[in-house]
Amino acid sequence: MNPVTLTDVQALDLADPLARKRAEFDLPEHIIYLDGNSLGCLPSAVRTRVTEVIDQQWGTDLIKSWNTHGWIDLPVVTGEKIARLIGAAPGQVICCDSISVNLFKLLSAALGLQPGRTVVLSQDDNFPTDLYMVQGLSDLLGSHRCRLLTVCAEDLERQLSSDVAVLMLTHVNFRSGYIHDMQRITELAHSKGILVIWDLAHSAGVLPLQLDQCQVDFAVGCTYKYLNAGPGAPAFLYVAKRHLSHVNQALCGWMGHQSPFQFSSEYEGAPGIEKFLTGTPPVISMSALDAALDVFDKVDLLEVRHKTKRLTDLFITLAAQTPALDVLSLASPTDADQRGAQLAWRHANAYAICQALIAEGVIGDFRAPDILRLGFSPLYLRYEDVWHSVKVLATIMETGRWQNKKFSQTSKVT
Amino acid sequence: MNPVTLTDVQALDLADPLARKRAEFDLPEHIIYLDGNSLGCLPSAVRTRVTEVIDQQWGTDLIKSWNTHGWIDLPVVTGEKIARLIGAAPGQVICCDSISVNLFKLLSAALGLQPGRTVVLSQDDNFPTDLYMVQGLSDLLGSHRCRLLTVCAEDLERQLSSDVAVLMLTHVNFRSGYIHDMQRITELAHSKGILVIWDLAHSAGVLPLQLDQCQVDFAVGCTYKYLNAGPGAPAFLYVAKRHLSHVNQALCGWMGHQSPFQFSSEYEGAPGIEKFLTGTPPVISMSALDAALDVFDKVDLLEVRHKTKRLTDLFITLAAQTPALDVLSLASPTDADQRGAQLAWRHANAYAICQALIAEGVIGDFRAPDILRLGFSPLYLRYEDVWHSVKVLATIMETGRWQNKKFSQTSKVT
Repeated sequence: MNPVTLTDVQALDLADPLARKRAEFDLPEHIIYLDGNSLGCLPSAVRTRVTEVIDQQWGTDLIKSWNTHGWIDLPVVTGEKIARLIGAAPGQVICCDSISVNLFKLLSAALGLQPGRTVVLSQDDNFPTDLYMVQGLSDLLGSHRCRLLTVCAEDLERQLSSDVAVLMLTHVNFRSGYIHDMQRITELAHSKGILVIWDLAHSAGVLPLQLDQCQVDFAVGCTYKYLNAGPGAPAFLYVAKRHLSHVNQALCGWMGHQSPFQFSSEYEGAPGIEKFLTGTPPVISMSALDAALDVFDKVDLLEVRHKTKRLTDLFITLAAQTPALDVLSLASPTDADQRGAQLAWRHANAYAICQALIAEGVIGDFRAPDILRLGFSPLYLRYEDVWHSVKVLATIMETGRWQNKKFSQTSKVT
Repeated sequence: MNPVTLTDVQALDLADPLARKRAEFDLPEHIIYLDGNSLGCLPSAVRTRVTEVIDQQWGTDLIKSWNTHGWIDLPVVTGEKIARLIGAAPGQVICCDSISVNLFKLLSAALGLQPGRTVVLSQDDNFPTDLYMVQGLSDLLGSHRCRLLTVCAEDLERQLSSDVAVLMLTHVNFRSGYIHDMQRITELAHSKGILVIWDLAHSAGVLPLQLDQCQVDFAVGCTYKYLNAGPGAPAFLYVAKRHLSHVNQALCGWMGHQSPFQFSSEYEGAPGIEKFLTGTPPVISMSALDAALDVFDKVDLLEVRHKTKRLTDLFITLAAQTPALDVLSLASPTDADQRGAQLAWRHANAYAICQALIAEGVIGDFRAPDILRLGFSPLYLRYEDVWHSVKVLATIMETGRWQNKKFSQTSKVT
């Protein structure tokens, strides 16, 4: 097969139906950004919206904005916009808090539906905070009521026993990008009476999810990665309608009350998904999220998925035809169908290589202990960016530039 | 005594050492804002800061900003700025999540220090979310481990028994503005082996608090009221240094880990106050908070306190010399030393009166069932504003304008 050329790559951009979306972002100049899986780029509409929220809504209209500008409705309004992206009918998704806090709510809710079962089963290389939240709940309740069991991915299915109350998995692995088969695993878990919580942190916005169709019970997800809502933007959670009427969650704050402004001293949870709210919504962040989600208006997630597969395939192909990159080994599935929108490359010096790459304007990230992680956010990334990023990486490896001492100094956040 | 005149009031403004602070806010025109106890006004510095965070830090520098712009340090940096305002030595305050979520953390932490004790004692007219969070924890743990007991304020002290694990009180009552004696109650509780959680929602920024000196165990507080950090801004929490080394909290997410970026699957809490963090910090909101707190730089809280007493006293005096206002009865303490920066006026039609007042450009709020609540945020309110607000209220009562039907329609948020 002939090597892929820059001309071939440029042709892909010309034919890309999503290419038009790039203009909706404010992108930094002279940078190739392969870290949209950690922090998405700034949609221009967010800047406009935040300015309006600060100047007009907060600055001028002040407290009245809770009603007149719909601040109070933001958790539901943003939730419904996400619902469309994850295959959820209305009334099941809400935005609030962080993934960690939302997991605690869902874990407490799910365990409440599973009397007699104590185990929360997960994967040992799940994103750490997911495991920590189970550990915290287990320490609080005692192991006779909640016990975390983690196994490697290969052992998950055989651990689905009648002791297991909840199977809690991240759909796309944060390091490798490996995608679990949501439909099959959810079915399998249900066949053993197990409820399933999916963490969609690395899925929402890049994979065409079908939560309702897969009969998922609960899910959480992140909005600051592929949904581009800004650093530390509020998370979302999903609860299947069939559970809503009789499920309870432990973090039952006033915003989850059926009538918060009655100021009753007795908690009565809202009948719908609102019962999963806790405190006052962070209005500026949620307004940013609301504007960011409009970028997805009329976006076909099948096209998004198609492009992420081609972007990552292209990187792998170009790497394969670049001898200097032979020292990097792919820790992501080679089959595009089995991986999300990221590639993990293993190298003992991945940290320094990542820093050298960043110094050259190609932004990826490092995931301990030895992963150079590159994300391919399809709404603003061009095929040509992939070409250039491989070239830059090749030069770094050929010249040994990453061995410069300055690249080995660690920073707080990696 | 001669009636107070507008000239007298204007003299107070001329002599006000805090008058200069008003220029640091972007205030709406033609409005008298008596709702800073619900949502503080916009400090100009916040607008500048948020624009920089969006354009430069997020938009241009992207993921690198976690280090280069200190995003990762915001919870601690903002916590330390608040520490000065509440009489806390460094290392004990952190900003994160909502009051509700933070209360859950502190309740789980405090109960863990009190084996054999089960009761969380509070006041029946505490802010509802505080009570709800105990109810949620109690439902989760069972009443044999956590039980909420609420009594009226007068009965609190006699309920301090050896069954009580935690006394959880709001320092300034959200309706009446009544201030608890923090020092005396904390001492009394400690003498019975009870730990104390103070909610400072209506205290922080208007009262010269001394948490360390009062030997307080735990506290939470709000930043969107008198600290002016914007709608739904992150809350703060305080944990006394003497508890930090051996206390655990249930919502132990990755940001509370001693080395979050090691991505270890085992939770090891940070040694200091950071162990009370859970998820990723909301950077835009926390940056707004950081800028808002700078308004308090060099502000003497004794001067702030002095002014709030004079502002509220002035309103009461002017109301007393206005016969049309005789139908409103003061539900706040008449002694300024016993109340915070707000006044609660009782009237069976308080909702409609509040709406009529808002229609005339005087913004207060209604608290069910019958309270017209007026807040006096001293950094941007003038004595002359108090004069005019009394005049407007008098006209509304004299003309019976509040009886117009349009003022009786309820909105979602009141």
